[in-house]
Amino acid sequence: MERRTQILEAAAREFERVGYAATTVAAVARGAGVSQGALYFHFPTKLALALGVIDEQNVRTFDVVSLHDTSPTQALVAASRGIAGMLLTDPVVSAGIRLSLERGEFAAATAAFYDRWIGGISDLFRLAVASGELRTDLTPEQLGATVVPMFTGVQLVSAVRTGRQDLFPAVATMWRVVLTAVADPRHRPRPLGVVEDAFGTAD
Amino acid sequence: MERRTQILEAAAREFERVGYAATTVAAVARGAGVSQGALYFHFPTKLALALGVIDEQNVRTFDVVSLHDTSPTQALVAASRGIAGMLLTDPVVSAGIRLSLERGEFAAATAAFYDRWIGGISDLFRLAVASGELRTDLTPEQLGATVVPMFTGVQLVSAVRTGRQDLFPAVATMWRVVLTAVADPRHRPRPLGVVEDAFGTAD
Repeated sequence: MERRTQILEAAAREFERVGYAATTVAAVARGAGVSQGALYFHFPTKLALALGVIDEQNVRTFDVVSLHDTSPTQALVAASRGIAGMLLTDPVVSAGIRLSLERGEFAAATAAFYDRWIGGISDLFRLAVASGELRTDLTPEQLGATVVPMFTGVQLVSAVRTGRQDLFPAVATMWRVVLTAVADPRHRPRPLGVVEDAFGTAD
Repeated sequence: MERRTQILEAAAREFERVGYAATTVAAVARGAGVSQGALYFHFPTKLALALGVIDEQNVRTFDVVSLHDTSPTQALVAASRGIAGMLLTDPVVSAGIRLSLERGEFAAATAAFYDRWIGGISDLFRLAVASGELRTDLTPEQLGATVVPMFTGVQLVSAVRTGRQDLFPAVATMWRVVLTAVADPRHRPRPLGVVEDAFGTAD
């Protein structure tokens, strides 16, 4: 693993373990097995370290959005399934999302990433409407701008209530609501089948 | 105003201004215009102060849920409108929600409040289904357990992206999606009219 990545992963673990305020650069260096000098070379401040984690989280999660799925609806559901899976296993992803919501000093970086996410998800909704999979009075922009925050809230409340144990069924229920609202009524079973395929049957 | 409330409001303003970690009990006492001794009498630690804010936030927001609205769907939409309004004007509400999501040490209190919220909102969905306003394959419990996190995410992302300037239209869009999904198709204009009445027409 590249040293920069090694440091970011150690930082993410430490942010998750003790929170941003209590994290020390010394502990991150220890966790990464590098000297503080080496760490400072890559990240001159704790703030830079946090912004680096948020950045890397976004790189990793954007990567799961695929435009090559069989259908745009499948791509939407698969992306949420992929990110939910990363939230359960990758500390860079869980720490990045937590940091970006918890502190005012990250708001500018966070807002830019949310805009990008909303843009990407809106594009998939636009494709889904154009392909006839979905039919709705809402615009693709409105759908993107509401589904991205919905997912954010669903994963966050799942973390608080169950330590994310109910994350997959919670995301699946979110999709059942959203896709029921926007599916062409004549073809509704199809998008709901996409949710079942990705997450299993309703609990 | 009661001294206890005075202290909680000063604490909320301080938590919002500088975050939990940087808040000092001395600054809260100053903001409330009370001695540190008087403050300690009510709240022996900074943690107690934060839990007090979370508690008071929940008292104030539960209060806007009315079971006396004309219809259960109206009660649901009106509750979200009421809480959104408080998020814009009452620092106890915005600080309470922020604190409860941002720090691990509040997770137990927060989880209990979320359970109560989900229970209350599920009850309204149960009434709405029983009254024939809504018709859906999802259970009232599933609807409560998905709408409460959705609202949480919508308000949080609105805070990060626009400082909550788009909060009302964002909550309205959330309801358009949810109510389109769960309305009896023969009567769909009615619940959507409830959203328009509460939030104005779509942007």
